[in-house]
Amino acid sequence: MDTTYHDMWSLTKNALLSNGCDDRNSAAVATTVASAEWTGSRSHGLFRVPGYIKSLRSRKVDGHASPEVTHPTPAIVSVDANNGFAPLALEEGVEALTKVVSSTGVAALIVRNSYHFAALWHETFSLASRGYAALAVVCSTPLVAPFGSKKAFFGTNPISFAFPRKVEQPLVFDMATSTMAHGDVQIAAREGRQIPSDVGLSPSGSSTTDPNEVLDGILLPFGGYKGSLISLMVELMAAGLAGDNFSYEAELGDNGDGGPARGGEFIVAFSPEILAGPGWDEHCAAFFTEYAQQGDTYLPGESKRRLADLRGTVTVDNEIYRTIRNLTQINNKK
Amino acid sequence: MDTTYHDMWSLTKNALLSNGCDDRNSAAVATTVASAEWTGSRSHGLFRVPGYIKSLRSRKVDGHASPEVTHPTPAIVSVDANNGFAPLALEEGVEALTKVVSSTGVAALIVRNSYHFAALWHETFSLASRGYAALAVVCSTPLVAPFGSKKAFFGTNPISFAFPRKVEQPLVFDMATSTMAHGDVQIAAREGRQIPSDVGLSPSGSSTTDPNEVLDGILLPFGGYKGSLISLMVELMAAGLAGDNFSYEAELGDNGDGGPARGGEFIVAFSPEILAGPGWDEHCAAFFTEYAQQGDTYLPGESKRRLADLRGTVTVDNEIYRTIRNLTQINNKK
Repeated sequence: MDTTYHDMWSLTKNALLSNGCDDRNSAAVATTVASAEWTGSRSHGLFRVPGYIKSLRSRKVDGHASPEVTHPTPAIVSVDANNGFAPLALEEGVEALTKVVSSTGVAALIVRNSYHFAALWHETFSLASRGYAALAVVCSTPLVAPFGSKKAFFGTNPISFAFPRKVEQPLVFDMATSTMAHGDVQIAAREGRQIPSDVGLSPSGSSTTDPNEVLDGILLPFGGYKGSLISLMVELMAAGLAGDNFSYEAELGDNGDGGPARGGEFIVAFSPEILAGPGWDEHCAAFFTEYAQQGDTYLPGESKRRLADLRGTVTVDNEIYRTIRNLTQINNKK
Repeated sequence: MDTTYHDMWSLTKNALLSNGCDDRNSAAVATTVASAEWTGSRSHGLFRVPGYIKSLRSRKVDGHASPEVTHPTPAIVSVDANNGFAPLALEEGVEALTKVVSSTGVAALIVRNSYHFAALWHETFSLASRGYAALAVVCSTPLVAPFGSKKAFFGTNPISFAFPRKVEQPLVFDMATSTMAHGDVQIAAREGRQIPSDVGLSPSGSSTTDPNEVLDGILLPFGGYKGSLISLMVELMAAGLAGDNFSYEAELGDNGDGGPARGGEFIVAFSPEILAGPGWDEHCAAFFTEYAQQGDTYLPGESKRRLADLRGTVTVDNEIYRTIRNLTQINNKK
């Protein structure tokens, strides 16, 4: 079916509200869900709402959590999400980070005690839209075998990077450090599609194109040992530096309700105006022009342009839509 | 032949001294060269010395340059290398960065107007040895085709990350974002060895295992489009944020003497003690133990342990050694 941004936002917000989440938290999650679906990041869109609701019903997540923002140093923003969903904590954290980095030129944001499965580009894109470059990482639960292993140990450990541009929309990418994102494998399984043979291994450790076998088995890191090292770096930033769960710890502490696991997020932001000085935008614009002339190159972030205009509709999965509406209605009838 | 760390250090330092480099700069370059060779990073060891000397002889590099360290904000160290080799600028920059990050918890170092082809791990390892995590990036000259292109545009754009450990040596990796480092392809060509078929393409754009064809053609990024995005991020950090040459600009401004090209370097450092708080080391040590139990996993940095003990010898290439000695003697006879 086709639907509007605002319809998806309301659908998500109402579903959360009717399952014990307060207004501020419901609105923050609805914004990240609707923005993802709107820009084609389906694996972080409506698809995730039933999981959010499961974690409210199991009381794993506090739908009334109020994040606390502190500044351990003038260049650091630390947010304790107090066992709430990540989006509200990130909203407040990014707001504080923007103020800090505008004077320090480099600043870090750590979020702790949050339940996370939104896309990372939401924060990096937001920072880049305000003139700051940003790198964000998060780990999750064991799904990916490190290079040299056949056991799930790393999360899909995404890395998002955004870079501002004064005239154009920011450059932004957000990619799992596994060959394919877990959500995309789940979607392929639901839709009965095959996946490339380098995505993962079956439970017996053999190569397969069946997404169900990979979901029961393991995902592989992208790019062999080099991608595995990037994933290792993500663990050390998102858990080691943020002081929250490594992926293997997140699984041990989880109640298995199918919702997001508890963990941290780590973002570092940079002011090109302060670091490189005036002229940075012309310098980078010339680079982007050259890059575009090298062939069929890919400047990531174009899908995010849709956020600048929320009119019109997108096509969403009927079944997911109905499921979320039912999750709302059932609870309203109670 | 077998030789000692101190012999390699003196060989390099004397070669540079006798070709117009001052004592401080010669010593700094000799330390990075000898450390690389000592720990098995042959592509950044003695192999690079003739290139350093070419760039002194062509007067591209100022062997008497004195780096200037400034602090645009309390969290940023900016070093103008004043057209000298990178190692001395980095030595002074890392010293200043260490002081800054110990109070701010996150800090950035940008180096500009330097001539760089040392390994990046030297700086990240040094920071991690003092208790700080660090990420370092640099771009170079066009050698790698972005995903979707068959034209060299990116440098090999290495990324190095190091993480401190209180008991063990730090974790540290340093890898080109190309499938193979350019120096390693050069070494394979010199030694007449074949290379894997995914490393690069011949000048006509076809797959090849001949390193000479790849040196005339292009290198490919590791891990397809994902590795290409990491390389794009490196350009934007090392040139966009540092305010120095993108790889394509470095080539345009170079005199083609075979020495290093002018460019910037970007390092960001983090204090786990401030960010994650006390207990970070035990938390991460448990993670490393788990990681080691996942199979034949790779915890990078073990080769750097050799730096803790500079006794004994390593085997070096006879021809390179003789070449460097000749480059010293020729000039001394003048």
